Amino acid sequence: MSKSKNFYLENIPLDEAWRRFITALEGGGLWSELPGEDVPLEEALGRVTAQPVWAALSSPGYHASAMDGFAVRSVETIGAAETSPKRIPVGPNGPASYVDTGDAIPSWADAVIMIEHTQRIEEADGSQSIEIHAAVAPWTAIRPMGEDMVATELVLPANHLLKPVDLGALAGSGHTTVKVRRKPRVAVLPTGTELITVEQAAREGVKPGDIIEYNSLVLSAQVREWGGEPTRYPITIDDYQLIREKVRTAAETHDLVLVNAGSSAGSEDFTSSIVEDLGTLLVHGVAVRPGHPVILGMVANKPVIGIPGYPVSCALTSETFVEPLLSRWRGQQPNQKPRVKASITRKLLSPIGEDEMVRVTAGRVGERVVAAPLSRGAGVITSLVRADGIVRIPRFSEGVEAGQEVTIELYRTPADIERTVVHIGSHDLCLDLLAQHLADSGRRFTSANAGSLGGLLALRRGDAHLAGSHLLDPVTGEYNVSYVKQHLPGIPVVLMTLVHREQGLIVAKGNPKGIRTLADLPREDVQFVNRQRGAGTRVLLDYHLEKQGIAAGTISGYRREEFTHMAVAVAVQSGAADCGLGIASAAQALGLDFIPLEKERYDLVIPRVYFESELLRPLLDLVNGTRLREELNALAGYDTSHMGEVIEIA
Amino acid sequence: MSKSKNFYLENIPLDEAWRRFITALEGGGLWSELPGEDVPLEEALGRVTAQPVWAALSSPGYHASAMDGFAVRSVETIGAAETSPKRIPVGPNGPASYVDTGDAIPSWADAVIMIEHTQRIEEADGSQSIEIHAAVAPWTAIRPMGEDMVATELVLPANHLLKPVDLGALAGSGHTTVKVRRKPRVAVLPTGTELITVEQAAREGVKPGDIIEYNSLVLSAQVREWGGEPTRYPITIDDYQLIREKVRTAAETHDLVLVNAGSSAGSEDFTSSIVEDLGTLLVHGVAVRPGHPVILGMVANKPVIGIPGYPVSCALTSETFVEPLLSRWRGQQPNQKPRVKASITRKLLSPIGEDEMVRVTAGRVGERVVAAPLSRGAGVITSLVRADGIVRIPRFSEGVEAGQEVTIELYRTPADIERTVVHIGSHDLCLDLLAQHLADSGRRFTSANAGSLGGLLALRRGDAHLAGSHLLDPVTGEYNVSYVKQHLPGIPVVLMTLVHREQGLIVAKGNPKGIRTLADLPREDVQFVNRQRGAGTRVLLDYHLEKQGIAAGTISGYRREEFTHMAVAVAVQSGAADCGLGIASAAQALGLDFIPLEKERYDLVIPRVYFESELLRPLLDLVNGTRLREELNALAGYDTSHMGEVIEIA
Repeated sequence: MSKSKNFYLENIPLDEAWRRFITALEGGGLWSELPGEDVPLEEALGRVTAQPVWAALSSPGYHASAMDGFAVRSVETIGAAETSPKRIPVGPNGPASYVDTGDAIPSWADAVIMIEHTQRIEEADGSQSIEIHAAVAPWTAIRPMGEDMVATELVLPANHLLKPVDLGALAGSGHTTVKVRRKPRVAVLPTGTELITVEQAAREGVKPGDIIEYNSLVLSAQVREWGGEPTRYPITIDDYQLIREKVRTAAETHDLVLVNAGSSAGSEDFTSSIVEDLGTLLVHGVAVRPGHPVILGMVANKPVIGIPGYPVSCALTSETFVEPLLSRWRGQQPNQKPRVKASITRKLLSPIGEDEMVRVTAGRVGERVVAAPLSRGAGVITSLVRADGIVRIPRFSEGVEAGQEVTIELYRTPADIERTVVHIGSHDLCLDLLAQHLADSGRRFTSANAGSLGGLLALRRGDAHLAGSHLLDPVTGEYNVSYVKQHLPGIPVVLMTLVHREQGLIVAKGNPKGIRTLADLPREDVQFVNRQRGAGTRVLLDYHLEKQGIAAGTISGYRREEFTHMAVAVAVQSGAADCGLGIASAAQALGLDFIPLEKERYDLVIPRVYFESELLRPLLDLVNGTRLREELNALAGYDTSHMGEVIEIA
Repeated sequence: MSKSKNFYLENIPLDEAWRRFITALEGGGLWSELPGEDVPLEEALGRVTAQPVWAALSSPGYHASAMDGFAVRSVETIGAAETSPKRIPVGPNGPASYVDTGDAIPSWADAVIMIEHTQRIEEADGSQSIEIHAAVAPWTAIRPMGEDMVATELVLPANHLLKPVDLGALAGSGHTTVKVRRKPRVAVLPTGTELITVEQAAREGVKPGDIIEYNSLVLSAQVREWGGEPTRYPITIDDYQLIREKVRTAAETHDLVLVNAGSSAGSEDFTSSIVEDLGTLLVHGVAVRPGHPVILGMVANKPVIGIPGYPVSCALTSETFVEPLLSRWRGQQPNQKPRVKASITRKLLSPIGEDEMVRVTAGRVGERVVAAPLSRGAGVITSLVRADGIVRIPRFSEGVEAGQEVTIELYRTPADIERTVVHIGSHDLCLDLLAQHLADSGRRFTSANAGSLGGLLALRRGDAHLAGSHLLDPVTGEYNVSYVKQHLPGIPVVLMTLVHREQGLIVAKGNPKGIRTLADLPREDVQFVNRQRGAGTRVLLDYHLEKQGIAAGTISGYRREEFTHMAVAVAVQSGAADCGLGIASAAQALGLDFIPLEKERYDLVIPRVYFESELLRPLLDLVNGTRLREELNALAGYDTSHMGEVIEIA
């Protein structure tokens, strides 16, 4: 544990980091498009033209008939009318001659009469004529040579991203190949002694201290999505010389080298030293979070980026630095995410001095779009999986207040946001099932865990369409109704029962501590894990403790708060706690034992205005149908016999 | 030319055609997602999950340190403060023990102190301690087991389109493969005796009547872009039995068969009969344009679509019918193009009874987005290449008035529309060069040819940012100024000279008719081709005819109007005309002879409000720089010595 190094990282603002990087790239002649290579049209979709393309042929290459019909001289049709039809003899050299669509117009003709506008006449001498009832103007139903493209005209400019129809235009103007920008070659180097491959993990499991290496998978997929060609290297252990050699040789054969991780300033963070050793270190530490420990440097006149190890930091650093660089090399504008103004659902503190990228889910609720922050942990990749976009909190700001207007940079389209059902409240597994089925009806379902009470408050602020809730009124013994009346005064609301479910004590497999009832919780050898204040489960616990005269202060671990049933179950599974209160399905999922305490009602609280909306119709259909019911009945601890029952509160 | 068939096509509204198609697909059990197949995560980008994925491992799989630092028991830190630091001895089993980020927390510890917040102390006995200046709460800097994902929890739902970070979440939760929907297999059958391959065309040229077959290239690329797997068949000639056999066998091995073309009702349009012969014909003719002759049918319980032959009809029919079908099979919502309201720049007549899809370019001009219609020819694929979107004129409508509000379904993002410079007016090759360079500055440049006068009128209506103009005032001999004053009264405008260029008579190579001056135009053996009214070139012609006392009525072809210099040059090249008035570069491009008449000034007319806008700044930089000047000087007939000179008109 000798720590000879300095823990100092720079804190360079993003624009200044880019300025240094671009200056170095320009110095090396690297801040410009990559050269071209010829590819067959069949392989050119999604590639980018490296130079303007001019038509080699005209299209059509001759005056062509636009219809099936008869080529004629327009002067010979003058005078034809409904009341005075005209006959024109048919012959290979005119004055009328049959042409299919696309046929060349005979040189003597200057118009085509649609076949539907002609009547065929068999003359007495056996010859053929057509009878017409209207004159045609010169050039009627003729596609003049070059109508589409004239040889030598510009078909496509340089730096044009090739779509399917572009390939048609290239082929139609006489090209069989097209010169496109070479794909940027990107080396992806995962480093770290603690890393194991996903195959190892799947085969042998994960030992404490092991980290599954998947950042290189994500980086490679990003590079591919952004039009580059990734080389995914095997894992290199934390050995200065080994990593140095990999970086050196990768720089020789690639346009860009990504080293992940070792980009911080810890005892085994070698990347910055290696870049300094082999070339030039430009930046070590950027004022963004997540993703502070970023390295920008040049080795052998190739850019090297040290990418932080936390998966969210890794993916966002790549979006920030790799995507714009690849776009530049491909002659494209950097990816501009669609932006939308939104109201943020809760207060966020953010440190002065760093730009923070907060992952949010988003949906339209009434007149405004709401942005609900997801986990800010740099290790929580599921927060990026679930994110609808990013909200940037600038480094000059201390954060945002709940309800403040923010700008979301969307990962999805604005249309996706419009078809989103927003849930904030208590979470239950049945919401995952709901989400799955709603997708079939073209709805997206986003859910933020805020506990039952948090959900009601979100409805009051207009931040959600609905809230899952299971709040027991200690006085009436009834669920939700009194809470709704208290917290949503004046808002017409529908309470729709989803399920009844078992709450109880989650204990380790085999119940080694012999826990039987809540009376066991104050025992000295029992470590409890609690839910957060405002959670329905916490309300339930406090209700029963009070009823049984058990003082909260006597329970060891009462103050340790988790935010989900699963987190409580994990605490028990991992041995951090001996028991906690939660639902049966959470215990079942992790193979833990369960001591039932009470069957509670889990309702969806829905303001009437949304209950009646087209957006939520598929949800109501699901709740009133049989499929969801059958799936829930198959799970432990669920009773759907009251599903779909509603209580209206004006 | 025996036409035994009926020319009748149905005219079925789009929604009714879809209803029939979906009913037949449902009947065959085909209107649902395709089954799944396992693929390695490396190959799963862009694929779609075929079933929900549950975490096989928790992540992290143990309580992990979130920082480099020292694992401690939080109780031992109580009381530490700036004024009363605390020392904790360091040892492998505590009470303080070094941990790297990601290391497992020792079982005796419950918090981590960041290394930056510790001071290392060498004790007198040689042992190590850390000194701390603040207490830490339990679980500080620890990522609890399952923070990201808990084993058994939902990682991804079914029908989820896999993005790079999703692959990370799959790997991190213990998966090495993922079950994704099989790619829809689509057979693309080009048919037609008149077809030649693009390779043949490039090698041997295009004979009159030849059509380059590239629809199958476009269709295959579309299928690939929409997540399918195309099989591109070689060309089949118009032979009933041959095509029938291809359709029959293709249906056996594919999910969908596309036959292109032969979908109309002409003498060699076999597709509908073949579908009837082999299976069921559902629809023959849909009330849309372009793309009326569409066939929908079922063969061997596989859908078959007859796709019209005109390239625009082909590509749009595929967007209309193939994309939603592939999306359905992949469990995705059909592609929803972003929509934007816009003002249409000119009146369009559209037939009652057919939905028309009009290709438009789009850009924001002032407060509104404008949509400028492109060519409506079904054979003009460049209209799709250049299109920013589609405006639908419903079948109940006779068209739209200029300035009417329409909805554009965008091929690009709304952000692209915001960075678009809109030109309407007289076209010159130098605008193509401008467009290319503007792209480097992140601007898009769209241009609609409306002639000089058309451009000024567009500026007056607020439909464009600038207009190319070369209108000679016969009285003053000055260009543009008097026209601007007359047509843009009260609008402050800047006239910026781009080039002076040679106008003259374009004649065939070697000038076989011996044309020397305008006085030759009335000759009986001379066929002229004119420009449209309002074009600067037409104004120039009329000015000189008047001056020389030549009556327009004496010129054969004076009434044949073309809309571009190149169209005039093509008319001469193809022999349709002997001469026309145009610019030198058009003659040079097609290898024609040129008889100079006058050097004219070509200005950009720019309302002051746009002249000073950030949007147009890169354009002004280009005009005032050297690069564009040098490129234009290299072309025939251009003089850039006055480039960038401005006249301000208040």
